[in-house]
Amino acid sequence: MVLVLAGSAFLYLAPSLSLAIVGLLFIVVISYRKTIYEYPTGGGSYYVSKENLGQTVSLVAAASLLIDYILTVAVSIASGIAAITSAFPSLSVHKEFLCLIAIFILTLGNLRGLRESAAIFMFPAYAFVFGVFSVLGVGLYKIITGELIQAAPPAIAVQDPFTLFLLLRAFSSGCTAMTGVEAIADGVPAFKPAESKNAVHTLLVMVFILAAMFLGITFLSYYNGIIPTPNETVLSQLSRSIFDRSFFYYFIQFTTMGILIFAANTSFADFPRLASILARDRFLPRQFATQGDKLVFSNGIIMLGVLSALLILMFKANTHALIPLYAVGVFLSFTLSQAGMVRHWIKEHTKGWQRNAMISFVGMVITSVVTLILFVTKFSHGAWVIMVAIPLFVLVFLKINQHYISTGKQLSLTGTDPAQFPQGLKHTVLLPISGLHKGVIQALSYAQSIATDVRAVYIELDPRATERLQEEWITWGRAVPLVVLRSPYRSIIGPLLRYVDEVEESQHDDIVTILIPEFVTAKWWQQLLHNQTALLIRAALIFKKGMVVTSVRYHLE
Amino acid sequence: MVLVLAGSAFLYLAPSLSLAIVGLLFIVVISYRKTIYEYPTGGGSYYVSKENLGQTVSLVAAASLLIDYILTVAVSIASGIAAITSAFPSLSVHKEFLCLIAIFILTLGNLRGLRESAAIFMFPAYAFVFGVFSVLGVGLYKIITGELIQAAPPAIAVQDPFTLFLLLRAFSSGCTAMTGVEAIADGVPAFKPAESKNAVHTLLVMVFILAAMFLGITFLSYYNGIIPTPNETVLSQLSRSIFDRSFFYYFIQFTTMGILIFAANTSFADFPRLASILARDRFLPRQFATQGDKLVFSNGIIMLGVLSALLILMFKANTHALIPLYAVGVFLSFTLSQAGMVRHWIKEHTKGWQRNAMISFVGMVITSVVTLILFVTKFSHGAWVIMVAIPLFVLVFLKINQHYISTGKQLSLTGTDPAQFPQGLKHTVLLPISGLHKGVIQALSYAQSIATDVRAVYIELDPRATERLQEEWITWGRAVPLVVLRSPYRSIIGPLLRYVDEVEESQHDDIVTILIPEFVTAKWWQQLLHNQTALLIRAALIFKKGMVVTSVRYHLE
Repeated sequence: MVLVLAGSAFLYLAPSLSLAIVGLLFIVVISYRKTIYEYPTGGGSYYVSKENLGQTVSLVAAASLLIDYILTVAVSIASGIAAITSAFPSLSVHKEFLCLIAIFILTLGNLRGLRESAAIFMFPAYAFVFGVFSVLGVGLYKIITGELIQAAPPAIAVQDPFTLFLLLRAFSSGCTAMTGVEAIADGVPAFKPAESKNAVHTLLVMVFILAAMFLGITFLSYYNGIIPTPNETVLSQLSRSIFDRSFFYYFIQFTTMGILIFAANTSFADFPRLASILARDRFLPRQFATQGDKLVFSNGIIMLGVLSALLILMFKANTHALIPLYAVGVFLSFTLSQAGMVRHWIKEHTKGWQRNAMISFVGMVITSVVTLILFVTKFSHGAWVIMVAIPLFVLVFLKINQHYISTGKQLSLTGTDPAQFPQGLKHTVLLPISGLHKGVIQALSYAQSIATDVRAVYIELDPRATERLQEEWITWGRAVPLVVLRSPYRSIIGPLLRYVDEVEESQHDDIVTILIPEFVTAKWWQQLLHNQTALLIRAALIFKKGMVVTSVRYHLE
Repeated sequence: MVLVLAGSAFLYLAPSLSLAIVGLLFIVVISYRKTIYEYPTGGGSYYVSKENLGQTVSLVAAASLLIDYILTVAVSIASGIAAITSAFPSLSVHKEFLCLIAIFILTLGNLRGLRESAAIFMFPAYAFVFGVFSVLGVGLYKIITGELIQAAPPAIAVQDPFTLFLLLRAFSSGCTAMTGVEAIADGVPAFKPAESKNAVHTLLVMVFILAAMFLGITFLSYYNGIIPTPNETVLSQLSRSIFDRSFFYYFIQFTTMGILIFAANTSFADFPRLASILARDRFLPRQFATQGDKLVFSNGIIMLGVLSALLILMFKANTHALIPLYAVGVFLSFTLSQAGMVRHWIKEHTKGWQRNAMISFVGMVITSVVTLILFVTKFSHGAWVIMVAIPLFVLVFLKINQHYISTGKQLSLTGTDPAQFPQGLKHTVLLPISGLHKGVIQALSYAQSIATDVRAVYIELDPRATERLQEEWITWGRAVPLVVLRSPYRSIIGPLLRYVDEVEESQHDDIVTILIPEFVTAKWWQQLLHNQTALLIRAALIFKKGMVVTSVRYHLE
């Protein structure tokens, strides 16, 4: 599509560009093969750079990986839906809606444990490989038998002059084909034992299939004079030119969607895993860490679903707009990971380290050049977003980390003595009341059972009501003193807070417990009709030290 | 505008219709004069119908009043902004935005106590009256001197045939001029003493000014051949035809806006007042009642601001679309209020009751006929919305009332004996912990000070961590037993809830207190990094009876 900008005359460069991209692919794969053996715990470029390049660099890698997982979902889903709208053009207008539905289903499926039963994705994966190779095979056969003759692409107006810059743009756009490699390196633990061996095996099989498909599709499309159009994918045009609108054509479109949704699904395993690794390292909130409730991975899954849906909406499900963002991040990860590996080999001095370091170094140099090309050529096409997002992510990681470390220090018992902590606490229990009812009596019983210094506190809004209450208190108050606070401005919180301060000042070694009687209603909406004052008191007391807040609940029927 | 639908030929009916409307106005005012003396506490038709026509009818009146207050704001603001956009047509496209800004300023002003300083509205009010009478006076003078000669209205295509239905529609549309009457009856307590006398005095002054302006503007517009256009108000066209675009023309437009914003402002006093009356009668949540914090009226003010802004957006600040909704509600209130007064006079038998009952009866009959006409003629123009909204409001009122009454019964101490309530409660305090730190020790001190049966509860996610904790517990645990709960599915809440059930079953007369150690962070965003488990435990325990939940807070720096 980039080449076409310079007019269809320059399409003849497509096959050569594809060969160059496949060459790069093999260099990166050879380098990553070693990474998988050396870092079998997964985490890909985050772990590699953390061990070899220091915290900051590893956080850059983590940020670009997280962003890429989100983009993987957005891009894959958008492409998958594009396969369907290519087959059924009338659905084009509902593209975004269909993408959102797909993301919603994936999110829900993963929340309910789809991840573990990835077997349901086996069929579309194999079917897709079968389908594409059929297209290529039959296409080749038809060329040999002369049934399919070379066609010139439709004449297209020149939009941009042909320059080296344009060629580089085309090359870097094609490099996005390689993004699956990092996904395997990140997900090593997800393979069956021996994990590393299986992961490398998968990587190699995948790369050969990828290379064959990529070259085959490029060659056949070029031969057939097919160029991308906004409403139909190249693969759809190609299989249509070979199979017409037969059943097999639709089979290919649906399996294409299937495998792309499968691709999106890998992010639903990888994103929460990396988030949990980061949370364990205290760079993300502990809600993402694998501690405790089944909510564990759910937070990551939901966040991934929401963010990728936002991207779909922002970029109107346009794959050509999303891919530049994607590629920059992936190649940055490639570069960092391989830089880390160079460092690793030099440190380790294991057998063959010189050769391994050399491979990683070559890979690093080439991928860093591609990153740079991508960055420059795609800058105005969206890559700048990534360049803003990555530092922002890193900043947030560091802020969170700082906070957890400071918290840990403040809470640590190391170097303190058990005798330092007070043993016999003295208590004052304050029971704010707005009248007399069963809920108050229940709270009063509780208050008396936990302390001897109990005081009911009443804010006077109407002196007549106070008199009535004081009379009734003689019967019901169990000899607990009733403190009446005047409130000339009809404020409840103000006088209460002032009284709390008074109590605290008069008895320094005391703990003041505020006992709040609350109602639990039978239906949720009824809850809105109660507990407003309780809520206000709670909110007002949040930042007050040396206070304990207790809710004594009265259950309504 | 309605007459114009039948072509400009029928505009000659406008002056006669205006006279009929002014006639009706005087009948209603004579009837309301008595209402104000008999019900000086305000609340208008809600109080009158509550005392004389029973609960359901009074709630219908209350619903239509609340809806009308919201519509008053929307209609007045939209009209006020229309005065400005008439003078500056280029602002027309920003109409809705300007309305929202005006509502925002009014809401904010009222929240900060603008209500009490209504004096700032005196100037635009007097200026408006002065301005309009100048237009009328100068206009009349120019007619007499022959400077202004009668003009035929521009020829307009006939959209609807002239029918009785159309005439009635025109009549009922004009009746919206009377809506201010109910506002005075509602707000009697806002007047200076003697309130009733001043209110009636104001009512009469207002009605004479209104009648003069209404008749004058109608006559002059008719004489000048002015008909309403979507982008300029009639008053703007009229004053432009008399004063051109002189300073005085702009003066009139701005004072028109001023008085209309003043009109909207009255709702900001009336809506919260009626809402608080309804809340005191337990038909609205007690957040609206005049108890306690300064938040009191704020809730009503905010709700009014939000709802009227929504109406502006829904109806695109189009006064002609909003007014039909408005008029139905006002005339329903008129009818109910006067029906109540008929009943009142018959019950009271005070001096002159026959004559008073007769006046109210005539008023009631006429306003009920107008209500019916409005309802039928405006049904498809939006009146159906009101007919849906009123029953819905009434239903909500009744539901809320039911709940409060049932709550009151459940909580009442009447007929119970102080000895019924337990005196010496037995306690078990459970302290869920996820490790050992200063926060836990602090909570432990507190727990031991309120009960003897204290148990720390730990959910095991990793057996090695448990061993380490058990060792440390010997030093720090103060002989409190450490209960370890296995959690095969890594759930924290599940095992904890099961253990709470166990404890409750083994000791029936016990109160179980869950003591949750929480962190208070120095900055709000840090709060998001903590207390997740505390929140989950709280949520899971909400509906469990016989439990007390206590937060012991540890303040981080």
